[in-house]
Amino acid sequence: MKGAVLYAPGDVRVTERDEPKVIEPTDAIIKMSATCVCGSDLWPYRGIEPVEGPVPMGHEYVGIVEEVGSEVRTVKPGQFVVGSFFASDNTCEICRAGYQSSCVHRQPVGALGAQAEHLRVPLADGTLVATPEPPPADLVPGLLAASDVLGTGWFAAVAAEVGPGKTVAVVGDGAVGLLAVLAAKQLGAERVIAMSRHEPRQKLALEFGATDIVTERGNDGVARIKDLTNGLGAHSVIEAVGTQESMMQALRVTRPGGHMGYVGVAHGVELPGRELFFSHAHLHGGPAPVRRFLPELVDLIWSRQIEPGKVFDLSLPLDQVAEGYRAMDERRAIKVLLWP
Amino acid sequence: MKGAVLYAPGDVRVTERDEPKVIEPTDAIIKMSATCVCGSDLWPYRGIEPVEGPVPMGHEYVGIVEEVGSEVRTVKPGQFVVGSFFASDNTCEICRAGYQSSCVHRQPVGALGAQAEHLRVPLADGTLVATPEPPPADLVPGLLAASDVLGTGWFAAVAAEVGPGKTVAVVGDGAVGLLAVLAAKQLGAERVIAMSRHEPRQKLALEFGATDIVTERGNDGVARIKDLTNGLGAHSVIEAVGTQESMMQALRVTRPGGHMGYVGVAHGVELPGRELFFSHAHLHGGPAPVRRFLPELVDLIWSRQIEPGKVFDLSLPLDQVAEGYRAMDERRAIKVLLWP
Repeated sequence: MKGAVLYAPGDVRVTERDEPKVIEPTDAIIKMSATCVCGSDLWPYRGIEPVEGPVPMGHEYVGIVEEVGSEVRTVKPGQFVVGSFFASDNTCEICRAGYQSSCVHRQPVGALGAQAEHLRVPLADGTLVATPEPPPADLVPGLLAASDVLGTGWFAAVAAEVGPGKTVAVVGDGAVGLLAVLAAKQLGAERVIAMSRHEPRQKLALEFGATDIVTERGNDGVARIKDLTNGLGAHSVIEAVGTQESMMQALRVTRPGGHMGYVGVAHGVELPGRELFFSHAHLHGGPAPVRRFLPELVDLIWSRQIEPGKVFDLSLPLDQVAEGYRAMDERRAIKVLLWP
Repeated sequence: MKGAVLYAPGDVRVTERDEPKVIEPTDAIIKMSATCVCGSDLWPYRGIEPVEGPVPMGHEYVGIVEEVGSEVRTVKPGQFVVGSFFASDNTCEICRAGYQSSCVHRQPVGALGAQAEHLRVPLADGTLVATPEPPPADLVPGLLAASDVLGTGWFAAVAAEVGPGKTVAVVGDGAVGLLAVLAAKQLGAERVIAMSRHEPRQKLALEFGATDIVTERGNDGVARIKDLTNGLGAHSVIEAVGTQESMMQALRVTRPGGHMGYVGVAHGVELPGRELFFSHAHLHGGPAPVRRFLPELVDLIWSRQIEPGKVFDLSLPLDQVAEGYRAMDERRAIKVLLWP
């Protein structure tokens, strides 16, 4: 089958890869309906994370179940399913507490390479959520977004304790940041401040429910958010980048007693203990337990209450994966959908 | 009047200081009934925090109100009051959210030097809590503990979301850590694991409600806590030291989705972003908003439901402040009470 492989920084190609097979009795094999390129795929693509030999790429996926192992009970061939980037048993104590991405049996789906025609999904019953029936084509991008970027933005908003009456600030205008704006709106935030300097992303942020746009960054951005919040900072702050600068910006715009939710995969971040201490912020985040939110998100998409698929502003056939990575790397596209 | 002054690392003395006077109309002057030496006083005493010229010391206090400014409404001369280490208006938006130690008008009481015969307390109505009547002598140590170490331990337990059914681990066996054990017990924790290598402190931890004692530290301590919690870590972890080692130990024994409450004033701490990210821990802490908890704590002490004054294992006249600091520095005493 065809699948994307990263050979070296900047060198991603579709090549012939082995067809996946059921290995464990809890596996399912799905035929990919759509997959996509993630902001986190850019870390190794840019060489910021080391690339050790050719690696299959991709961890966002929706598709039709083709085959299941002998111990799979709830997932059935023919179902359209949405998964997430960590396979989880969804039964252990950590899963039951809502942290499926730290499941004691978790397996990274990324290592299996979802930017491909087929995918083996471990722990299928605990990982996959089926739609009521195969979706109309126009819902596929939204359901694909639920697989990671929507689920991640949603978790960030929940981690930041977004809710009615709250002022929310969102640091990062990638797909996750934009969908965190959507999540904040859905969760009842009174005011949602999106930090963005890019006009198309500002536009989408406003469409998703942002009430204010702040174009300043760093200290100026912090000052601007303080201005907008009586000098106090936001109640809920979402960090969706993962750099030292973005983490500090997020921490500094969180009011004392406020909540900061971080979902940008940390790269080179060191949080200064003293500033953290005196910030009085609540911090929470990490790899989003997308599985916790999937049933609700699939339902919101299915009933057309939200349209997260709008983050895909470029769709390409899987063959053109290299152009997809380039477009995201150069910020020409917010998020690239790939049709296998 | 007599008051403690730190001249240089290791050099603390009682000297003649100016009698405090009402300066602001919101001030109160109290005659000290008891004060004490705090673990955080040891940072400058040990030269870890720079000492710039002679500074008055102390920020924990209970006493009788002698005089109030013209705008003080609720606090009256003759009342016995408990205060905390930040004066707060208790009316601003941050105070109303329960973060009085980040009050927009906060003033550090430490700068005024509570290890003395008298003390000026700014923002008296927002800072001081009166007992129903002047207390019997045996309650004074407990009420004094409420002023900081109990309030701080209590905040740590609340920040760590201690509650029924939870397993709690406490890193640090100073007065704050020990009183966090007491708080965890009061807040209904199922199991309270105290990390301590000092026999007298272990004994007090058990008296305050610890169910387990772990004597190992560092990686061994982490492994031991994991052993005691099915390999998952504790639900709620309290950090009451403030060093890199203790913060990392606390983070590493917090289970995914668990809560870490930190109240040790951070010294030289840098939290590695990636480990924090993948820990899935909730973090919260900082300078305890003791004022939030004071009414409840005073009530628990007054009704003799808790006996936090047990942390004072050495009482000295104020004149012997130097011996008090030495005893704490050398860990001969858990906490030293000073009688003015």
